[in-house]
Amino acid sequence: MTITSAIAELGTVLGDRLTTSKSELDLHGQNETHFAHMPPDAVLYPETTAEVSTALAICHRHDCPVIPWGTGTSLEGHALAVNGGVTIDLSRMSRVLQINTDDMDAVVQPGITREALNTELRATGLFFPIDPGANASIGGMASTRASGTTAVRYGTMRENVLALEVVLADGRVIRTGTRARKSSAGYDLTAMFVGAEGTLGLITELTLRLHGQPEAVSAAICVFDDIDTAVATVIATIQMGIPMARIEFVDEATARAFNIYADAKMPEKPHLLLEFHGSDQAVSEQAERVGEIVADMGGHDFQWTTKAEDRNALWKMRHNAYYATLALKPGATAVVTDVCVPISRLADAVRETRADILASGLPGPILGHVGDGNFHAILLIEPGNAAEKRLALDLSHRLANRALAMGGTVTGEHGVGMGKLDYMVAEHGEGWTVMGDIKRALDPKGIMNPGKLVRTN
Amino acid sequence: MTITSAIAELGTVLGDRLTTSKSELDLHGQNETHFAHMPPDAVLYPETTAEVSTALAICHRHDCPVIPWGTGTSLEGHALAVNGGVTIDLSRMSRVLQINTDDMDAVVQPGITREALNTELRATGLFFPIDPGANASIGGMASTRASGTTAVRYGTMRENVLALEVVLADGRVIRTGTRARKSSAGYDLTAMFVGAEGTLGLITELTLRLHGQPEAVSAAICVFDDIDTAVATVIATIQMGIPMARIEFVDEATARAFNIYADAKMPEKPHLLLEFHGSDQAVSEQAERVGEIVADMGGHDFQWTTKAEDRNALWKMRHNAYYATLALKPGATAVVTDVCVPISRLADAVRETRADILASGLPGPILGHVGDGNFHAILLIEPGNAAEKRLALDLSHRLANRALAMGGTVTGEHGVGMGKLDYMVAEHGEGWTVMGDIKRALDPKGIMNPGKLVRTN
Repeated sequence: MTITSAIAELGTVLGDRLTTSKSELDLHGQNETHFAHMPPDAVLYPETTAEVSTALAICHRHDCPVIPWGTGTSLEGHALAVNGGVTIDLSRMSRVLQINTDDMDAVVQPGITREALNTELRATGLFFPIDPGANASIGGMASTRASGTTAVRYGTMRENVLALEVVLADGRVIRTGTRARKSSAGYDLTAMFVGAEGTLGLITELTLRLHGQPEAVSAAICVFDDIDTAVATVIATIQMGIPMARIEFVDEATARAFNIYADAKMPEKPHLLLEFHGSDQAVSEQAERVGEIVADMGGHDFQWTTKAEDRNALWKMRHNAYYATLALKPGATAVVTDVCVPISRLADAVRETRADILASGLPGPILGHVGDGNFHAILLIEPGNAAEKRLALDLSHRLANRALAMGGTVTGEHGVGMGKLDYMVAEHGEGWTVMGDIKRALDPKGIMNPGKLVRTN
Repeated sequence: MTITSAIAELGTVLGDRLTTSKSELDLHGQNETHFAHMPPDAVLYPETTAEVSTALAICHRHDCPVIPWGTGTSLEGHALAVNGGVTIDLSRMSRVLQINTDDMDAVVQPGITREALNTELRATGLFFPIDPGANASIGGMASTRASGTTAVRYGTMRENVLALEVVLADGRVIRTGTRARKSSAGYDLTAMFVGAEGTLGLITELTLRLHGQPEAVSAAICVFDDIDTAVATVIATIQMGIPMARIEFVDEATARAFNIYADAKMPEKPHLLLEFHGSDQAVSEQAERVGEIVADMGGHDFQWTTKAEDRNALWKMRHNAYYATLALKPGATAVVTDVCVPISRLADAVRETRADILASGLPGPILGHVGDGNFHAILLIEPGNAAEKRLALDLSHRLANRALAMGGTVTGEHGVGMGKLDYMVAEHGEGWTVMGDIKRALDPKGIMNPGKLVRTN
């Protein structure tokens, strides 16, 4: 009864930070995927790094699983209590500790959401650009190496986390990195914990790279008759060095969903949605140059704007793509895929995937961060319909293998969690063994978020 | 006699790839620092990954140290055979294996130098921007997480290596990463080997991110009466989001060195040297806007140009700063420092360091990659003069501690090697223990480049 004894000691030492109320356990057993409900045995709400350290030392002593929790918006079951144990909910550790405007960095606690952070930054002239869609916690975004629509310009969490404070499995607290912009001082522990999904330690503080709020922003939309032309346009634009802030692809099925959900009046064809950041002069120049490329490549209906209301409407529509898509099949739930391929293979990957989806009979719009080669199919299934779930998972499986065959990855930004675990050998080969070696070196008892990312036995 | 038996078996298996000629051993025992000559017992010139794998398996079986060698331009004694053993010289593995123009990446062997790579890329419209000054090998640059003058725009090796092939200590070959632009598929093994200085494995192939050759380039130079104004100008420029490709600081002593060595006719005051990449219109606009900021901040003599010959002369002078500096004290050798601090502390760090250098009586120009907060003092000493060497090392020691006290790092881009090993506890604390855990997990016998970056006993 290792979990029971751990919870007893946690209750004694951390008192009212701990709860075992059924509603709290249920809440922390939910997830946004097709995975079953898997509640933990207790939920802890620490308020300081010292409390996290104390909790992990206790759990370590009792061999009790520890599952970190941000906002629960993960798409691969990252926060499910596969083996029970204690979920550590970081929502009370959500403060901005420092904003250093001259250095363009901020030190934050892991529980703060990206929207809350940007609200606090508003008056500084700076912002944190990473935008995975969901209003996720910064700690969760770091742990899944999140990215989203702006990665083509600003990078992913990998490029925007400068330093971390991490509590190790046994309760020791370490700091990785510094506030200096770069360093060659040893192994890149910051990069090791970013994307580790809480399996090597629990992030309790993050130093983030901030960026200047752009002086001007322009947005554009254009239409293509086929996917190949849209992707060729993206490649040409990137090769010319035009610094796009966003370049998003949506297919005809997504356009149809926008038309129904948001009354968008878009032609039911592939589209690119773009954004440019810079000086007034630069964003005009960039939009005009992209307009020329679009025309040269055979795209049409290129429209651009610097009006904030038009731009906000465009990106609001894009952010609601998941809900717009769900509305195509009332009552549906979704299996969301997440491959990323070299951009030269993107048109092939999207075309083959679309044919595969059409053949399955499931609705499955495709949209993606096309500047990075990352795209999602949102496969709609009826809840509880085992046959449809099987169809969707088979589609997802073929898509993952297609991405690997094209030199890509099975997850561009959602992470491994439980959902992509079975592909790790195919993607990493013997490198997968090395990941296991690292896991055992840092968490020999295997208490940190078990059942995710690595297998330890 | 583990080394002897390893060399005997290597000779049997790999034949003429192996040499124990005194001149070869001497050549591979040299280094560009104040460290003593430390030759290996043998030098191996593998031509394939399979040969590297065979060699490491043999050395592993015999407990024989393995030291990777690129071009020998490291500044922290990275390639010295501290405990003897076999140096693996990668100069015969210097091919470009793939150039993927649509994906803007290239797959290369580790022995190719950055200049040779860019020569091969010239006709593609792409280039590899990382420029540490020396014409180093790409494998060596990855292993020290090198950067240089262009990191402010293009990042360091951390941001520009997409994937690796690595031979592990026991000869197993793994691949890390893919050609996809991003991934959330597990621990970031690519980032773990970049900057590992050959202590975890030997890099045999690299997939590099390439960038479009800019359509237009402009360069600028300007003068300041003090360091604080120069740094404040840099901060303002970065905060306005002006995408500089280079922004280099040189102090008055460096300006004097340029005047003597290159007949530069520069005022003996702090300078900033800048470069902009973009469209014709963009580089003009950027240079003009920086000119306005310089004037606002109290800088003067701002001059900018789009002429290639003027620009090349400027960067040639900057690249030769080391030699120009050495010429200030004929016959001198140098101790080169490499701290990086948050940019808000940069003026303090440079000012205090300059005062410290002046008090020592040693010539010691300061110059740096000011957009990143990284600067070097080139401390000139007479070869064989123990008192001067002591003075320089004491200055370097105080500078390292000053950087740490300011929240920075003891090495921005040169690496740990032997020279910065004693600062790792101060910089990383318990994180240093974690680095040791990783080292033991991947190289339990401690054969990979011993005596560098980590201590294993």
